[in-house]
Amino acid sequence: MSKFLREPPSIRTAASVIVTATALVVVGAGALMRVLDHHEYSSIWLGMWWALQTVTTVGYGDATPRDVVGRIVASFVMLEGIAFLAIITAAITSTFVARAERERAVANAATDAELERRLEQSLGSVAERLDKVEATLRELVSAR
Amino acid sequence: MSKFLREPPSIRTAASVIVTATALVVVGAGALMRVLDHHEYSSIWLGMWWALQTVTTVGYGDATPRDVVGRIVASFVMLEGIAFLAIITAAITSTFVARAERERAVANAATDAELERRLEQSLGSVAERLDKVEATLRELVSAR
Amino acid sequence: MSKFLREPPSIRTAASVIVTATALVVVGAGALMRVLDHHEYSSIWLGMWWALQTVTTVGYGDATPRDVVGRIVASFVMLEGIAFLAIITAAITSTFVARAERERAVANAATDAELERRLEQSLGSVAERLDKVEATLRELVSAR
Amino acid sequence: MSKFLREPPSIRTAASVIVTATALVVVGAGALMRVLDHHEYSSIWLGMWWALQTVTTVGYGDATPRDVVGRIVASFVMLEGIAFLAIITAAITSTFVARAERERAVANAATDAELERRLEQSLGSVAERLDKVEATLRELVSAR
Repeated sequence: MSKFLREPPSIRTAASVIVTATALVVVGAGALMRVLDHHEYSSIWLGMWWALQTVTTVGYGDATPRDVVGRIVASFVMLEGIAFLAIITAAITSTFVARAERERAVANAATDAELERRLEQSLGSVAERLDKVEATLRELVSAR
Repeated sequence: MSKFLREPPSIRTAASVIVTATALVVVGAGALMRVLDHHEYSSIWLGMWWALQTVTTVGYGDATPRDVVGRIVASFVMLEGIAFLAIITAAITSTFVARAERERAVANAATDAELERRLEQSLGSVAERLDKVEATLRELVSAR
Repeated sequence: MSKFLREPPSIRTAASVIVTATALVVVGAGALMRVLDHHEYSSIWLGMWWALQTVTTVGYGDATPRDVVGRIVASFVMLEGIAFLAIITAAITSTFVARAERERAVANAATDAELERRLEQSLGSVAERLDKVEATLRELVSAR
Repeated sequence: MSKFLREPPSIRTAASVIVTATALVVVGAGALMRVLDHHEYSSIWLGMWWALQTVTTVGYGDATPRDVVGRIVASFVMLEGIAFLAIITAAITSTFVARAERERAVANAATDAELERRLEQSLGSVAERLDKVEATLRELVSAR
């Protein structure tokens, strides 16, 4: 977590990784539940149905692990589900924020260009004055 | 998803689309459940009651699909629910961030305008002094 | 919603409003359920227990409305719960983003101050040269 | 809450604090439920299983408090869960936003540096031309 906050992965990478991880967790935890808790989970499909309810935090409770080992697996599935929800929300939020930011950046670029134009105009008028000064000086020198 | 992250739609469009999609999913999945799993769902209202519980991830579990086909429909409803929650949260977050950003931008614009004003004043005074230099030189030329 | 996205309220106001609204909804919906669905809800405390489960999307399902009118109330409670979660998340996220932004702004201010210092130095050296030019000119004029 | 919005803690601190707090709440509320509601919760493990379901808002409902005191504890666990989800989501979102911001900042810094370089070049050339003017004037003075 703390390493993650220091060096965040690319947003698109993070979103792909969590979606893939969640799909694997649903399938894997479903299969694992079938094996570990076959009294409660009569098929791998029931296991996957439970796992999907869990990662999305819907949690109907129509199929829940009763054994200690099943509940330990379930705890990891729940925590992975929280990471899934948080990262998906974060990825979408950051694209929305970036979009708004980009619009602001376009407006700022126009203001900056205007500032630059005016500064260059001022500098241009200074250069013009210098041209006149130099021309007059040349007259003075050559008139001697 | 990856296309979405590259080219995010307008925030307001995204929020409207997901709200409409979720409303349609609640009604549509409610009706579909009535048709596909009429043992469990005695009316379309019960189907919609279940669908709303599911998209909001409340998931009481007082009405859950028992058939494979019902659970497949339910899986889509759950995933749509996650998209709903994530996009609503993202839309509200980005308006909050944009608001804070706008306040900061006003403060920054004031600082930038002040720097600009001082630069232009300095360059203006350089131009004025050059005008005086030029006038004095001109006097020197004509006085010869 | 669309009006909300156009004119977002102050973040602190929004957070206070949603917290207050959610507290009122928990108490109000709890009382309403006691009145509307007294078969299911034997006391106002049971109603509030159900309402809190619903706004937080925990949804154990140990007490759920069975009547149409109760389910309609529940639908509003669920949707208010979604707004609650989204706005709380958005408020905390935007304070975190603002904090990171403020740190960046401090760094930027240092860079801007450095730019300003160097520009003023350049302008200062131009002014010095002008001083010398004017002094020399004064000599030329007085020497005549 | 309002104090929190005024003076947000460091994002990493907030994330660590909420993760620690949530771990403590799961263990503590699990133990507390075992003590307060031992009819429903036959072991501390069942209490922790319930607490984890609650903080993640999964809420299967296979073990729920029936006593008033248990439900009061549960209310705090639910609200802590909401804070957990909101702060985790906020922390991840703000690292994503900061990352995008940093990339934009690099691009902006390049544009700003280019403007700065051009301004300094212009001011430098003005100073050089003034040097030449001064030299010529000096020649004029000494030639007299």
